[in-house]
Amino acid sequence: MANSKFEYVKQFEQPDQLLPNTWIVVRIDGRGFTKFSAKYSWEKPNDKRALDLMNAAARAVVTDLPDITIAYGVSDEFSFVLHKTCTLFERRASKLVSTIVSTFTGHYIYLWSTYFPDMLLSPPLPSFDGRAVCYPSLQNLRDYMSWRQVDCHVNNLYNTTFWTLIQLGGMDTTEAEKTLNGTFSADKNEILFSKFSINYNNEPEIFKKGSVVFRDYELVEPGTHNVAVEVDNIAEPVQQSKSQLENDKKKRAKARIVVEHLDIIKDDFWDRRPWLLSNKPGKTPKQP
Amino acid sequence: MANSKFEYVKQFEQPDQLLPNTWIVVRIDGRGFTKFSAKYSWEKPNDKRALDLMNAAARAVVTDLPDITIAYGVSDEFSFVLHKTCTLFERRASKLVSTIVSTFTGHYIYLWSTYFPDMLLSPPLPSFDGRAVCYPSLQNLRDYMSWRQVDCHVNNLYNTTFWTLIQLGGMDTTEAEKTLNGTFSADKNEILFSKFSINYNNEPEIFKKGSVVFRDYELVEPGTHNVAVEVDNIAEPVQQSKSQLENDKKKRAKARIVVEHLDIIKDDFWDRRPWLLSNKPGKTPKQP
Amino acid sequence: MANSKFEYVKQFEQPDQLLPNTWIVVRIDGRGFTKFSAKYSWEKPNDKRALDLMNAAARAVVTDLPDITIAYGVSDEFSFVLHKTCTLFERRASKLVSTIVSTFTGHYIYLWSTYFPDMLLSPPLPSFDGRAVCYPSLQNLRDYMSWRQVDCHVNNLYNTTFWTLIQLGGMDTTEAEKTLNGTFSADKNEILFSKFSINYNNEPEIFKKGSVVFRDYELVEPGTHNVAVEVDNIAEPVQQSKSQLENDKKKRAKARIVVEHLDIIKDDFWDRRPWLLSNKPGKTPKQP
Amino acid sequence: MANSKFEYVKQFEQPDQLLPNTWIVVRIDGRGFTKFSAKYSWEKPNDKRALDLMNAAARAVVTDLPDITIAYGVSDEFSFVLHKTCTLFERRASKLVSTIVSTFTGHYIYLWSTYFPDMLLSPPLPSFDGRAVCYPSLQNLRDYMSWRQVDCHVNNLYNTTFWTLIQLGGMDTTEAEKTLNGTFSADKNEILFSKFSINYNNEPEIFKKGSVVFRDYELVEPGTHNVAVEVDNIAEPVQQSKSQLENDKKKRAKARIVVEHLDIIKDDFWDRRPWLLSNKPGKTPKQP
Repeated sequence: MANSKFEYVKQFEQPDQLLPNTWIVVRIDGRGFTKFSAKYSWEKPNDKRALDLMNAAARAVVTDLPDITIAYGVSDEFSFVLHKTCTLFERRASKLVSTIVSTFTGHYIYLWSTYFPDMLLSPPLPSFDGRAVCYPSLQNLRDYMSWRQVDCHVNNLYNTTFWTLIQLGGMDTTEAEKTLNGTFSADKNEILFSKFSINYNNEPEIFKKGSVVFRDYELVEPGTHNVAVEVDNIAEPVQQSKSQLENDKKKRAKARIVVEHLDIIKDDFWDRRPWLLSNKPGKTPKQP
Repeated sequence: MANSKFEYVKQFEQPDQLLPNTWIVVRIDGRGFTKFSAKYSWEKPNDKRALDLMNAAARAVVTDLPDITIAYGVSDEFSFVLHKTCTLFERRASKLVSTIVSTFTGHYIYLWSTYFPDMLLSPPLPSFDGRAVCYPSLQNLRDYMSWRQVDCHVNNLYNTTFWTLIQLGGMDTTEAEKTLNGTFSADKNEILFSKFSINYNNEPEIFKKGSVVFRDYELVEPGTHNVAVEVDNIAEPVQQSKSQLENDKKKRAKARIVVEHLDIIKDDFWDRRPWLLSNKPGKTPKQP
Repeated sequence: MANSKFEYVKQFEQPDQLLPNTWIVVRIDGRGFTKFSAKYSWEKPNDKRALDLMNAAARAVVTDLPDITIAYGVSDEFSFVLHKTCTLFERRASKLVSTIVSTFTGHYIYLWSTYFPDMLLSPPLPSFDGRAVCYPSLQNLRDYMSWRQVDCHVNNLYNTTFWTLIQLGGMDTTEAEKTLNGTFSADKNEILFSKFSINYNNEPEIFKKGSVVFRDYELVEPGTHNVAVEVDNIAEPVQQSKSQLENDKKKRAKARIVVEHLDIIKDDFWDRRPWLLSNKPGKTPKQP
Repeated sequence: MANSKFEYVKQFEQPDQLLPNTWIVVRIDGRGFTKFSAKYSWEKPNDKRALDLMNAAARAVVTDLPDITIAYGVSDEFSFVLHKTCTLFERRASKLVSTIVSTFTGHYIYLWSTYFPDMLLSPPLPSFDGRAVCYPSLQNLRDYMSWRQVDCHVNNLYNTTFWTLIQLGGMDTTEAEKTLNGTFSADKNEILFSKFSINYNNEPEIFKKGSVVFRDYELVEPGTHNVAVEVDNIAEPVQQSKSQLENDKKKRAKARIVVEHLDIIKDDFWDRRPWLLSNKPGKTPKQP
């Protein structure tokens, strides 16, 4: 074949498989979204339409890639979790990251007009970058998720107070910054409540908790499953029968993918949804 | 900060900087484009609109990321070349790959209606995956580019003959495959010419050569620059003055980005455009 | 400093830290030991002196590097296990592997004359290569250790039968190979017993089980510790007080390092020695 | 096979091939040699016997591994260079590093008594760690070598002056340090000359230049070979005939390996020895 003289260049491709039996998190981040949000005059501190668009794009990613177990989003970032037994794309980092980023971006652009019907998108277009990180234990993964949700809380409380000082309190950004400098959570709650009669607890859950995207099955009673132990005992990619795998695939395809705003730090969320960690589809919930 | 308990999870992020002083190629590929092209009944063997859309998206990527030196596309793939002195994103592989893939996908979706005004895009949306490869020497890089263009030629000659046998010769796919089995280039040229009076040389350049995307400056006489030696002597990221860098940046931003269908295997293409390998902007061409 | 012009070359050093919270196994292998063992006419199928020398070198490695939890050796290979919380050399792969290989080789050469007093060592000298592998879960690590010990058993049963057929049965190597072709363990046991009155079970433990090297503390009753759960809950390198760490270090330095030939596949070995997995020194055994 | 249940653990081994067409440098360093040199009361600032032992061990490494092109050593470190076309061990980093470290350590221990006949070696034994670095261009490699030799010069001038101030000038270490603080090369030369009548230029070459280890062929006239261009044109591992490779191997095995103390920063060293960069054995020098 005429090709052979040049084909040696393929040897320069280096393998990038991620370590087996580890949880893979692919986190994507908006590039230059401060500027981007200014261009479209998004509301401060949170623009509900922008968050809904992020969530819709993430939902599409979870739909297109059934290997994704759960996703968590806040602001202009989203984390997608692949189960530790996942073998999608032979666990090649660049393939996983680029596919998720591409699918997300595609839907973000495609759905823009649904969420911003009155704003015409124009170049430079929004874009996202991403990276994959491996977490060896379930505790590490849970801590990663908690890290992002605590970050959401801390940032949102700050931003809510900051923009209230400006929008309702008439401060400029420098004054607001100075006012918040060195304050603790309690102080910010107090500022909001005493000065503006705002009870932070009553703020929308989507702002306070971020968004969780996952397949929805029938909840189980906490304590009836010991998933943690179950999960850590999976030493190797479990060999399942073909028909079992086909079955699971169908169940996953049929499952409703939901976007919720729940506490994912406490055990309760995970205890009631053992399928998230076990990688075995749950029962389809009864229709009301 | 409340965060600290979970923040240790950041330690699991592993560095992925690409080796300095090597040419970086980020190649992206359409995911499942056989199925996708069937969905929109693209013309066989080449759909001009689809190629133009690919090229428009690539052009947007080169515009958004001035660090890209040149890009080469064929079918549903595109290769983006970053100069060996490039320090964009500290040469982090996942950041480079994901940003290019995201920017490309975004423009592909955004520009869809321009190139397919009568076809409404609907999920599952087109998406792309990507990877980065390092090439230590200029010869390696040139050989990579040649590899892709030879591939373009070989595939296009095959596909042109294959679909001619079907569309004009009335064969089914099995018969066409059988007819081409074991043939050489000369045989395919002969089939096209003797049976269908098609001179393959007269096929559109975009089909035969693929597409090259680059910044256009004034061509130089071949032989007046010895870029190869110049380039290989760059041992380390050359320290340039701030004002020089600013200057170069402005020149790059002003340069016209062109899409052409040229032979990039022979030296001539590179000899006339020394800026591609030297990473120094050329002279702005005189307006006619 | 005169150095600065060239110092940029340091940038080409790429990081190679191993993923945190995973067990690290460094396995070293003798290079060309078939030839080497022929040169010194080692006994077949096992040379007790050669194994004792391997064990003595491994013991010296465990002494020099207190971060090593346990080591397991068979034939011309040895595996050294570093606890998943280990931060020695910042977990840099090449540093860990090269230090262990160097320390092992040094002692192997140094101790040669003790174990082969009548054989003068001469170049080419014995040497070893090594590699590091990460295991995310305790089960993976246990399975790795089991894999090596099963390998030891399978090879030793084969070799014992093979060399008995030759040494006692008068066969040549081709005949012996042919005789063993397709046989199962039971067949080999039967050959040994019925033809040569050898009960494989009575073979020396060092040949059948390989060698385990570890710090020896007072054994505990199985079932009194649940190390597995304890260990998997260590999500991050546990912050210990300085004095605690100093204390542990002293206890480790004082501990007797033993070489034993035990079953490490069954739980019992690990249950009775919780310090191996918990990374907390046990009680010093009472002197008899 | 009984093994299969555990064999899955092999999947955790991750590939570590170094990028093709790059020069590989494996640098090894003595571990804790300050303490080690104190234990054996080595002479300050340089112990000729210790350097000769390092060089002898390095010579043995170059003999055992004919793929090594050249080695350069100073103090307790040695750098071994593998040609960019080298395919030894499929360019696996851990295999290359561990083999070189092991071979070096083995010979260091083995040859100890030759160079220190009156000093009995005892544990803790000397050991070395190592790492591999890739250099894409010849200029990068040359700069690496220059970096090490400049380092040798800078350190040796400092150490020579420092220890002269102590040994001949009667200072303690604090006074000597203070005296040298902020001095330039010229100042140190001046101190040596004016106070102690020592002309630094007359110091032994082995101290001032370090040691180069390589295969010795007939020198060529500088300017008759353009190796740099030749070398950079090697785009891919050149396919050589089997007989050619065998021939080269024999020539390499027969070549005398020399230890010299030459300037490797200037072009002359490399111009006269084109085989170092071309990887083609030179002519055997005529015997006098």
